[in-house]
Amino acid sequence: MDFTSDVVNIAVEELSKLPGIGKKTAQRLVFFLLKQEGESVKSLAAALVALTERVRYCPVCFNITEQTPCAICEHPKRDRHIICVVEEPNDVLAIERTGEYHGLYHVLGGALSPLEGIGPDNLRIRELIKRLQDDVDELILATNASAEGEATALYISKLTRDLGIKTTRIARGVPVGGDLEYTDEVTLARALSNRTEL
Amino acid sequence: MDFTSDVVNIAVEELSKLPGIGKKTAQRLVFFLLKQEGESVKSLAAALVALTERVRYCPVCFNITEQTPCAICEHPKRDRHIICVVEEPNDVLAIERTGEYHGLYHVLGGALSPLEGIGPDNLRIRELIKRLQDDVDELILATNASAEGEATALYISKLTRDLGIKTTRIARGVPVGGDLEYTDEVTLARALSNRTEL
Repeated sequence: MDFTSDVVNIAVEELSKLPGIGKKTAQRLVFFLLKQEGESVKSLAAALVALTERVRYCPVCFNITEQTPCAICEHPKRDRHIICVVEEPNDVLAIERTGEYHGLYHVLGGALSPLEGIGPDNLRIRELIKRLQDDVDELILATNASAEGEATALYISKLTRDLGIKTTRIARGVPVGGDLEYTDEVTLARALSNRTEL
Repeated sequence: MDFTSDVVNIAVEELSKLPGIGKKTAQRLVFFLLKQEGESVKSLAAALVALTERVRYCPVCFNITEQTPCAICEHPKRDRHIICVVEEPNDVLAIERTGEYHGLYHVLGGALSPLEGIGPDNLRIRELIKRLQDDVDELILATNASAEGEATALYISKLTRDLGIKTTRIARGVPVGGDLEYTDEVTLARALSNRTEL
């Protein structure tokens, strides 16, 4: 016999579909929400609906945006000769937070992964190649440092070599503030081989 | 300059109000939701709104419910002579999951906490005392084993002593499957002093 409310069960079920949220966490969230004012729960719900209704992909760089093209693609002060290639929209956020990059982006929508059946046609690689026909001086490959990210960077660099466009890869090394003792050997080896002169 | 979408920022802000969800997790959730079908995000939002619109507190036991009184209070097979006192609605769920308890509940809505300014009047203790005028044989105090939960149990037991109602407290001891080595000394001391004859 189940004495719990259907509405509660449905909310728990819906919340536990989110990544990193198991049934227990979902239950805790639901009991938290039940203690809140109705209005604050409604504004959360409205924010989620607005996400699906108002956020689109930029037709140029495929970052998420509410306008077409996105604010970065359209901004007059961004350097249109450099394109930074990333896997996902949150990678754009991460790079923007550094405040060090002033070029454009291209969001692939993932990385090559034969195991998951993701090939070049599933990513926005064709769209990237098309953008390279404009006056692009440099392509920065900022895919993740994972096996998939490396494979994707390699794949793209092979395509661009023929086009004669300078293609760079972000540096791998010991994280700033990182302790050598706790750095894995692959990263450390990479940090050694990529050492720079002072 | 902030190039992120307002809608995304609002959703991140709303999600990070939830307990245990920081800004990074909220951002991860938003990017996950952006990859989902619009319909599935809407059904999550609808489930949350339904929570605030349809879930009420049972006027008898103060558990959350969609009907008045709740399904447990109304169920003909529940033993109406035993009331189990808990702090929150999720404690009811936890006890129901054991399948061992067939009496009624009373949800206090928290525990006494002078530090947080929660006194007897902030909990549903008066409502509990009123219920004891019915034919109640036993009151099981199943508040948490925390300092606040213990204080609340003690407070209620003092009130019920005068009413001559058998009042019990759930046992504290080593968790089933628990390892003595990893059990804290207070729990272990309690397990020793509450030892039972075999």
